[in-house]
Amino acid sequence: MADHFTVIKKDSTTEARLGSLVTAHGVVETPCFMPVGTQGTVKAVLPRDLKEMGCQILLGNTYHLYLRPGAGLIRELGGLHKFMGWDGPILTDSGGYQVFSLAATRKISEEGVRFQSHMDGSSHMLTPEKVMEIQAALGSDIAMMFDECIAHDASRDYVRTSTERTLRWAERCLRARGREDQLLFGIIQGGMHEDLRRWCAGEMSLMPFEGFAVGGLGVGESEAMLHAIGAYTVGLLPEDRPRYLMGVGRPEDIVNAVRAGFDMFDCVLPTRNARNGTLFTSQGRVNIKRADFARDPRPLDEACECYTCRNFSRAYLRHLYMAGEILSSQLNSQHNLYFYHRLMKRCREAIRDGRFDFWIASPMSVPVQ
Amino acid sequence: MADHFTVIKKDSTTEARLGSLVTAHGVVETPCFMPVGTQGTVKAVLPRDLKEMGCQILLGNTYHLYLRPGAGLIRELGGLHKFMGWDGPILTDSGGYQVFSLAATRKISEEGVRFQSHMDGSSHMLTPEKVMEIQAALGSDIAMMFDECIAHDASRDYVRTSTERTLRWAERCLRARGREDQLLFGIIQGGMHEDLRRWCAGEMSLMPFEGFAVGGLGVGESEAMLHAIGAYTVGLLPEDRPRYLMGVGRPEDIVNAVRAGFDMFDCVLPTRNARNGTLFTSQGRVNIKRADFARDPRPLDEACECYTCRNFSRAYLRHLYMAGEILSSQLNSQHNLYFYHRLMKRCREAIRDGRFDFWIASPMSVPVQ
Repeated sequence: MADHFTVIKKDSTTEARLGSLVTAHGVVETPCFMPVGTQGTVKAVLPRDLKEMGCQILLGNTYHLYLRPGAGLIRELGGLHKFMGWDGPILTDSGGYQVFSLAATRKISEEGVRFQSHMDGSSHMLTPEKVMEIQAALGSDIAMMFDECIAHDASRDYVRTSTERTLRWAERCLRARGREDQLLFGIIQGGMHEDLRRWCAGEMSLMPFEGFAVGGLGVGESEAMLHAIGAYTVGLLPEDRPRYLMGVGRPEDIVNAVRAGFDMFDCVLPTRNARNGTLFTSQGRVNIKRADFARDPRPLDEACECYTCRNFSRAYLRHLYMAGEILSSQLNSQHNLYFYHRLMKRCREAIRDGRFDFWIASPMSVPVQ
Repeated sequence: MADHFTVIKKDSTTEARLGSLVTAHGVVETPCFMPVGTQGTVKAVLPRDLKEMGCQILLGNTYHLYLRPGAGLIRELGGLHKFMGWDGPILTDSGGYQVFSLAATRKISEEGVRFQSHMDGSSHMLTPEKVMEIQAALGSDIAMMFDECIAHDASRDYVRTSTERTLRWAERCLRARGREDQLLFGIIQGGMHEDLRRWCAGEMSLMPFEGFAVGGLGVGESEAMLHAIGAYTVGLLPEDRPRYLMGVGRPEDIVNAVRAGFDMFDCVLPTRNARNGTLFTSQGRVNIKRADFARDPRPLDEACECYTCRNFSRAYLRHLYMAGEILSSQLNSQHNLYFYHRLMKRCREAIRDGRFDFWIASPMSVPVQ
């Protein structure tokens, strides 16, 4: 059942592993990072440039694409790959997290979630079956089950009730699967409670998902909590299937999660930060507005070989940002995504070479943040 | 003196000509179109993509670069080419047109123009000498003389006075030249008055400029006036030097001006229209918002081989525009600029093959607008 995923090498001193995930649109080497393409585009980056920087797989947002331009339309046009001009693997989320963000207007029942569109206020209902239907229409390589993403400060009673429902939704998603060429991942919830997380992971692991994700993190909990939950949950997930830590996050969080045994990651941080002028470098995070960059002829990161660092100076990047030029978002996004992809490549190389623990302890593994 | 420019072929039935313009950063085949890179970037397009689409030469705006980030800073950083990552030829305008646009806050004297920055209201003075100094600092391949751009409805008396001053400024610019590797072009003014245009062209032609531009058009005059002034002015300019019709314009205007004998063009139209969702195609102008594009799987222009048309559908381009995605500006700008460059390439091929007049009369030369 787990032919789609192979652990190529397991690190000897940590839980890190090098893996290979086969999808309908190609093989993904893990650990990997998935740039977020919310509305059918990774903001400000051409698909060609994503390929060129070593991007293997993208994430698409079911919630956004369902509302605009609509899943039926994307299916008619040949699916999400063709629609957005990306022929590599795509994972679609389930919309659970986005609906969770609409706290004021959503209503959760056993059937599903009724909510109002953030665009025009129109009323919609997402159910496990509906979410599977949408993702089948989008034609992603990996679909995510529909879950409830729980607030980090929810009461224990609420978390238990919600997690029970998420487990029932998991079974409904499995029954509603419509495509043989689409992998389906389960999602572990359980809030900030270790026993509920353990229980949910145990129950979910018994179900025939092709991969498992840990959800509900990165929603306001402490860094210590994030790492603790990640670490004990990942150990409860089947070793022969990919493990995906959803929505996390900062480079240092990702490297720590790779050490704990996670294989897949996504986050809006590199692209959102890029548009806000915050750039990741081998010397740490940098704000491109810095006054001392005004006359600085050096590349943003002298250790970086991305298109931006090979061709432009700090002074130019600062100028573009100050002038409000679109090219600022383009060049910054290319740099930040290249940084993330290079980080994952180095993780993979370190595991392959049996030096992951040594590498992670060195100052060059995760730049000072 | 005119070694930098060679007329390779003169059309037999029109005034169109195929030329070769040698600059410090490479040879430009004319007739050519120069995309406008106002603030040190052609908005939303990477330099690499400009090269790939056949762009030969860019235009930079002296006024904008002088105010931000400053000409001294650009000089320190190795000049405008290095600053913006473009190693091909660059022409800089003189700022005359931009200062003209600041009608409310500028004050013209014999010495120059005092104006307030559109950014922070600070007071600045541009003179012929200052403008030459700025362009020398920028290090463009072609500098433009400082002229006064006159409103199309200015009185005859004002036009005469202003044109006389522009002629004196031309001499001051020639005296203030600072770089041997920079060509300098004169600008013909004279408002909407044929006799003043003829007089200015005659006087200006006697001066040792490496090229001549016709300015003050595209500022609100009628299409007939634009073509008439263009046509009689161009005939008064030396045949052995390049002729540049500034700020014009629409594809049909450009082809008509090539027929009249112009060699160089610039306009913000392709990039500005792109950002507003108006696209140039072989079937005419198209608004990407069109409702019937929502489910249209075809490329925007089936006769186009740009990156956008090779990879994306009308439905996708419409979706990006409606969703306010940055990628919309990127893909639309690439398409429109490709359209302009292909148009110029076809002009050159038609002149070379001795079929320009036949080509210009065919429905495929300039798409229906």
